[in-house]
Amino acid sequence: MHAPVELADIAADVLARIRDRAPRVHCITNTVAQNYTANMLLAAGAVPSMTIAPEEIVSFVGGADAFLVNLGTFDEERRSAINVALGAVQTARMPWVLDPVFIERSPGRAQFARDLLAREPTAVRLNAAEFASLFGGDAADEAASRVAKACGTVVALTGNADIVTDGARRVTIANGDPLMNLVTGMGCAGSALVCAALAVETDAWLATNAALIALGVAGEVAAQSARGPGRFASWILDALHDLDRVTLRARAKVS
Amino acid sequence: MHAPVELADIAADVLARIRDRAPRVHCITNTVAQNYTANMLLAAGAVPSMTIAPEEIVSFVGGADAFLVNLGTFDEERRSAINVALGAVQTARMPWVLDPVFIERSPGRAQFARDLLAREPTAVRLNAAEFASLFGGDAADEAASRVAKACGTVVALTGNADIVTDGARRVTIANGDPLMNLVTGMGCAGSALVCAALAVETDAWLATNAALIALGVAGEVAAQSARGPGRFASWILDALHDLDRVTLRARAKVS
Amino acid sequence: MHAPVELADIAADVLARIRDRAPRVHCITNTVAQNYTANMLLAAGAVPSMTIAPEEIVSFVGGADAFLVNLGTFDEERRSAINVALGAVQTARMPWVLDPVFIERSPGRAQFARDLLAREPTAVRLNAAEFASLFGGDAADEAASRVAKACGTVVALTGNADIVTDGARRVTIANGDPLMNLVTGMGCAGSALVCAALAVETDAWLATNAALIALGVAGEVAAQSARGPGRFASWILDALHDLDRVTLRARAKVS
Repeated sequence: MHAPVELADIAADVLARIRDRAPRVHCITNTVAQNYTANMLLAAGAVPSMTIAPEEIVSFVGGADAFLVNLGTFDEERRSAINVALGAVQTARMPWVLDPVFIERSPGRAQFARDLLAREPTAVRLNAAEFASLFGGDAADEAASRVAKACGTVVALTGNADIVTDGARRVTIANGDPLMNLVTGMGCAGSALVCAALAVETDAWLATNAALIALGVAGEVAAQSARGPGRFASWILDALHDLDRVTLRARAKVS
Repeated sequence: MHAPVELADIAADVLARIRDRAPRVHCITNTVAQNYTANMLLAAGAVPSMTIAPEEIVSFVGGADAFLVNLGTFDEERRSAINVALGAVQTARMPWVLDPVFIERSPGRAQFARDLLAREPTAVRLNAAEFASLFGGDAADEAASRVAKACGTVVALTGNADIVTDGARRVTIANGDPLMNLVTGMGCAGSALVCAALAVETDAWLATNAALIALGVAGEVAAQSARGPGRFASWILDALHDLDRVTLRARAKVS
Repeated sequence: MHAPVELADIAADVLARIRDRAPRVHCITNTVAQNYTANMLLAAGAVPSMTIAPEEIVSFVGGADAFLVNLGTFDEERRSAINVALGAVQTARMPWVLDPVFIERSPGRAQFARDLLAREPTAVRLNAAEFASLFGGDAADEAASRVAKACGTVVALTGNADIVTDGARRVTIANGDPLMNLVTGMGCAGSALVCAALAVETDAWLATNAALIALGVAGEVAAQSARGPGRFASWILDALHDLDRVTLRARAKVS
């Protein structure tokens, strides 16, 4: 296992590589979160693209370094684009993240998420309700590890504390601030940040940790001066943009 | 009639109930305003959802406490989703709000709004141009009351001052700040806030008043420190998030 | 040629006319940039509309003073709406701007942009990669002037410095701040601002200069107090809203 300070250092390394390499992240994501997701990626140093047109998605994905599938807007065009894009993504062995937003509210969306899971995403980021909808039962640590092993994916189960596991390794990240729950698209943008990290770090478990530690610490820094959700939404982007190794080491709460 | 201080207190009560119960508000709204509307609902303590896919809209609406129809994006998919959703909304006797954005610019949109009005929304929020397009003639106080009575709905006619009437009762709310007109989606988000209020207050006239008083007062508070429209868009969310009874009592301008 | 101070004055005049006349700008633009574009137009004093429904686009465009075509979301509905709208735009001799976002990443999008160019936009705003995709070869000053003359359009080639040419006249604008590259939709919103300027200034070359000078100077003003991309996105709207002749004269860097 990695010591906490080591994981904070890896988060700093991954951020430095994102800033240096400016990886392209193609996002098929919901219309509510598109703008904020793009701004989060830009603040981290990555380059977003967002087209969903099936006839050009392969061209876009072909130039990308990582791919995000977020089910928050569940229309015919996006479903078609996701299917087409994943062919190109898998041929290129490109990392991709599944964010199965709100699947607990819609059986059709849950089934689509199950089909996507069978295509082996590099990581799945979801909350407890989405986890229960996708895998049944409770969302305890053991279940997350079992699912990660069975599906061959990194599971990032987010909540008051985030659990990140690849089946063999597991870490709990206790960073963040309650204001993060009052900004729409924060979780969606977090999944995009995981994509950016996967683009520059081949160990998917370390990359996922790095992204979630960075976002949580940025949230804590932002909450020091922005005590309302409106300002906080902007301040956290600035905190992520400025995040440095010293702050990550001082604040990362991993166990 | 209610005394002004009483309406300010009711606004404080309604806000407290929204924060306590976290009602779910499902919004079929335009792509420009989706993000801001979701953030406004979150700042008030409500939980937004925004799907427009006809095949899952009933699942989402089934778990909601109020429903918003905003015509700002007027595509085939939304029209279909609105029709499907309203069946479920009416079966569940769930409150819903119609916001007939820009109907004065498009005859097809105006006709669709008239058809929706026949399905008896709990409240209609619109400006003078939209009122004239929907009901003909001028948008004077008397016309608003007549329409409210005839349609069995609360009419919230917004402008420099907002008029809220259910045909029997009428109030004028003179809160707000001109900067509110320089933030896109402010009116759309205001209609969503009316939905959140309707979810926790069965007297639709009181609920609509409460939401518009709260938003107007939040705008005044925000404008004290944010004198440009960019900052103001965030500051008003923070003011709404922090809004308390003392501020509402001191600032509500109802007559 | 115009002296630099003269171009700064013209930018101030154009801004004053936008604030005075509140021109309507109809934008068919991408879903990521819609909200920010609308807020940019409002901050400048213009009135945005954004519908893309083919059956009502003519009604909207009929009441507009300028029209924006941005290819950032490239779906069937938008392509259809663009074609229908351009008929009305050209009949009304209304100014319109083409912003061929990301055409270098998608052959279909590039071909669509070429077809639109043949319909003689008043101005084309694009970066070096987009220029190369549309016109081949490099994006040097001479190429831009040649293309502007051949196509009968103003070419605004944006980058570290912006080049604006109508084939006969050419200016380089060296305003702006690197943070502008970290806000998604900044370029798209800039194209909308060019539309607003074209609505109040018939010399398309002067109008395009005015919009880009104003945006670049607003960016510099914002960057003095907002050093991160999150805050900067709001601050630049405020700076544009407050921009005055003295600041434009002091800061405009045109040559």
